[in-house]
Amino acid sequence: MSQQISVSAFLISRIQELGVQHVFGIPGDYVLPFFDELIKEGSPVKQIGTCNELNAAYLADGYSRVKGFGVAAVTYGPGAFNAVNAVAGAFDAHVPLLLVSGAPQTERYREGKKLLLHHAVGSDLNATIRVFTPITAAAARIETAEEAIPTVDRLLRVALDQQRPVYLEIPFDMQRAEVEVPGRLNYQPPSSDEQALRKVVEQVAHAVNSAGKVGVLVGVFVDRDGLQQVVEDMLTASRLPFATTFDQKAGHLEHLPNCVGFYQGGVTPQPVLDATEGADILLTLGMPRTEFNLGFLTHDFKEERMIELGHDTANVMGEEVHGVYLRHLVPLLAQKISPRAEEVFEDTFPFTYTKQREVPENRPLTVDFMYPQLAHFVQEGDIVTGNTGGYINMSRMRLKKGNTTVGPTNWASLGSVFPISIGMAFAAPERRIVCLDGDGSFQMTGSELCTLLRHNLNFLLIILNNAGYTAERAIHPDRDDSYNDIQVWNYHLLPQALGGRPDSNGVDAHTEAQFVDALSSYRGKGLQVVNARLDKNDMPSFFIEMSDMLKH
Amino acid sequence: MSQQISVSAFLISRIQELGVQHVFGIPGDYVLPFFDELIKEGSPVKQIGTCNELNAAYLADGYSRVKGFGVAAVTYGPGAFNAVNAVAGAFDAHVPLLLVSGAPQTERYREGKKLLLHHAVGSDLNATIRVFTPITAAAARIETAEEAIPTVDRLLRVALDQQRPVYLEIPFDMQRAEVEVPGRLNYQPPSSDEQALRKVVEQVAHAVNSAGKVGVLVGVFVDRDGLQQVVEDMLTASRLPFATTFDQKAGHLEHLPNCVGFYQGGVTPQPVLDATEGADILLTLGMPRTEFNLGFLTHDFKEERMIELGHDTANVMGEEVHGVYLRHLVPLLAQKISPRAEEVFEDTFPFTYTKQREVPENRPLTVDFMYPQLAHFVQEGDIVTGNTGGYINMSRMRLKKGNTTVGPTNWASLGSVFPISIGMAFAAPERRIVCLDGDGSFQMTGSELCTLLRHNLNFLLIILNNAGYTAERAIHPDRDDSYNDIQVWNYHLLPQALGGRPDSNGVDAHTEAQFVDALSSYRGKGLQVVNARLDKNDMPSFFIEMSDMLKH
Repeated sequence: MSQQISVSAFLISRIQELGVQHVFGIPGDYVLPFFDELIKEGSPVKQIGTCNELNAAYLADGYSRVKGFGVAAVTYGPGAFNAVNAVAGAFDAHVPLLLVSGAPQTERYREGKKLLLHHAVGSDLNATIRVFTPITAAAARIETAEEAIPTVDRLLRVALDQQRPVYLEIPFDMQRAEVEVPGRLNYQPPSSDEQALRKVVEQVAHAVNSAGKVGVLVGVFVDRDGLQQVVEDMLTASRLPFATTFDQKAGHLEHLPNCVGFYQGGVTPQPVLDATEGADILLTLGMPRTEFNLGFLTHDFKEERMIELGHDTANVMGEEVHGVYLRHLVPLLAQKISPRAEEVFEDTFPFTYTKQREVPENRPLTVDFMYPQLAHFVQEGDIVTGNTGGYINMSRMRLKKGNTTVGPTNWASLGSVFPISIGMAFAAPERRIVCLDGDGSFQMTGSELCTLLRHNLNFLLIILNNAGYTAERAIHPDRDDSYNDIQVWNYHLLPQALGGRPDSNGVDAHTEAQFVDALSSYRGKGLQVVNARLDKNDMPSFFIEMSDMLKH
Repeated sequence: MSQQISVSAFLISRIQELGVQHVFGIPGDYVLPFFDELIKEGSPVKQIGTCNELNAAYLADGYSRVKGFGVAAVTYGPGAFNAVNAVAGAFDAHVPLLLVSGAPQTERYREGKKLLLHHAVGSDLNATIRVFTPITAAAARIETAEEAIPTVDRLLRVALDQQRPVYLEIPFDMQRAEVEVPGRLNYQPPSSDEQALRKVVEQVAHAVNSAGKVGVLVGVFVDRDGLQQVVEDMLTASRLPFATTFDQKAGHLEHLPNCVGFYQGGVTPQPVLDATEGADILLTLGMPRTEFNLGFLTHDFKEERMIELGHDTANVMGEEVHGVYLRHLVPLLAQKISPRAEEVFEDTFPFTYTKQREVPENRPLTVDFMYPQLAHFVQEGDIVTGNTGGYINMSRMRLKKGNTTVGPTNWASLGSVFPISIGMAFAAPERRIVCLDGDGSFQMTGSELCTLLRHNLNFLLIILNNAGYTAERAIHPDRDDSYNDIQVWNYHLLPQALGGRPDSNGVDAHTEAQFVDALSSYRGKGLQVVNARLDKNDMPSFFIEMSDMLKH
């Protein structure tokens, strides 16, 4: 006799198999059976409430960046639609996650009456799937119990194969429908075409080993495909000069002596350009040609000297080969690349820990003072994140071994990185998180601070309080466009207002000395908020240069 | 010689013609030319910044509910996607508004290269339009300067004809493109079919005048179509007994002596049921058959006795006639309906000002104490709004002459009503706003409180602090489902944290007396926040009855 479980319990067992222990989301009547299953005693997966569904999906995104997969659950219609931007961001940044949405009873879909159900777009019960189709790798609804297992398994495989989000709609009755307990998913990443793989490895190894000067750019898929260690080993052994790039700056490699700096097209320091664009062979590892990676297309790539190894496609000096995966290519390549002679590279990071730390004074805090301090403050293994302005500066900060970085990537949605970082805190509670959020960005999603307090997570939040959208001010640095001004909050008073004890309030840092005090008083446990007061036009020169390219 | 203006300036002149003086939104590089035009000296329309684009669209929605039209402006991709839920809500609630989105240069659409532009969903530049198509009356992009005027005018007409949102994408270069100064839009609502109109009026007048008992249900389109006064006059002259309904409870009519109460299907007091469902003719004015209006389909309508006059369709005892508009029907009907004999109706509102006000004591605050106090406190002409829980209770509160109400309607998105109410404050700065937000709801969008402070708007915000989603707790009143718990904020401390002066902080009201003090100390100017502490299971019986229907 076969054993039966509910579709909800089945789905929970699947996501547990993928290493997920937290589902982020907000209940609503259409999704209650799934939530009831999540909070049952003994459930292997915990439900974590957030302020809204946008943040729930962002937390799932951050969780996925650490654990390899994330899940958010919401109610039908408004619940799912609040999450649209985060799902689209995960699509663009190649983060696999599952958005589970409740839905009306299956009979509502069949009966043909044009009812005006609550949470439905007029009488159109397909509007939700239509909205999610362009921004996910797959979007589907479970219409019968028989479909439940194949639909869930198909979506999970698609999400993991493509490293992108999927949307699953489960009607109310289907959440409780019984299915036979199935075997495990046993997900395995797709295999590479063996012959093509061997050929590409030979070609690349030959080209790299026979070239005079070789440069490497390290991109986001090194992180997504879990290749941090193998890439570090390869770069260490080969001594190839490399630079990190914008989308996920692979900060964990920047301590290596052959890291020449940070590359971003036309806004790259000359020694880094010489070592990369100027090389005889430029090898990119998992770096999509996004606008942000290429400094808004100000790059100067010689196509005949480019070898680009992407997530599932290689391009060797103009010859494109599909079905060869980075995760299979890199380990093989590592064995074939001959070591270079030892070389000493200048530290080109404007904000670096390899130089002496400046002594703080009682002067107004500035970006140029702050970031070198942070470069010293960050410890090995920290997670260091930042939203647009904070990240653009942070991308020029040299990081240490084992640092994980997250920025806004090419989707560049203000407000995304703070809740993404909270998701990372749930996934890696033992690690310290240093998050540099802009004030404009923080105002978009900052209420989620209460979740850090509620769960007592370790989180240093530095809010760059420059009274507005300074990343946008940089586009017209000569003007004072009023649309870039925002209400100046007392960010350091938020913890108590959001339910913390009075002593949970943060530090109001106007001066260098106050900022350094705030850093040194943080013991790595619990929440610390730093209201870092900066002049509204305080931008380093590379920042203005980069923003200049956004004039279109 | 013809005069030229930019597409941005043209668009601003059009929305000004529709009575719009404020555009809500957040700048971003793709939309800067439009924002630059908005902040030019002498611009007839002012740009108002919000915390995020979701709230910008909600403010535009609220603005539209007062002024008849609203506009939000955002950047491409993340900016537009943040607004999806508010746009879908406006679609569902029949609120006309325009969402303007910036977009990449037109050449990017033509050149066919698969570039990975920032803010774009991968290389798919049509994903944004595809997402907005199912949730708007029309979604379009201006691709050439020649198209600009016809495209804008078509979208505005569609929005006003259908009373629904539209989405307009303007590529960066098109925002600056020059067009010939056109004539005015001169929007006129669609005409009714004259013959059908006359016939429906005759039929309805005859049926109503010859019936014994006639009941009336007043719906949302009375407000949307600007028929408040003509309906009030008709109900006053005819003395027909009527009830208000959920989607927009037409509070401005509840002071009339022939208002028998509030109707919501199976959760309606018996005298109201007798006067409506029990009548020989039940006439509905602009009331769509939404789930919330009908108490989750627990209504008992006798179809052969129903006369339903909708926004553009009439149904007279089963005979459906299209192309007859409520705004044309009601004034004609008003002249033909014979007055009834005077009758005295019992006040069936559980929360009413027609009974003595209870004297506050030093007891814990309760819903049953609070709402009758509010019914007395609300003045003629106030705007009174509430989100799900607050609104369900508020819908049973008898309102006064000229009150405008807004609730979550059938879309029922948590977090919507607070920012919608802020938009109303911009549209009617001389009116007092009383907003009853739930705590769970407020946490979704509450950061927009800073905009009330920044613009010194008159706003009484009462937060029903019951430590979670009490409207959901009511679905399983016997259980204590942890997913309904939320972090308890110190809501009264938010004003200072969000940038107000220390004396801007609100009142922490645990007791009846503290609550009444908070109300009586509000002078109608500026912001007052009341942290109204309620037990987490404090729900009136009709509330539990209604929620019971959400068990599916």
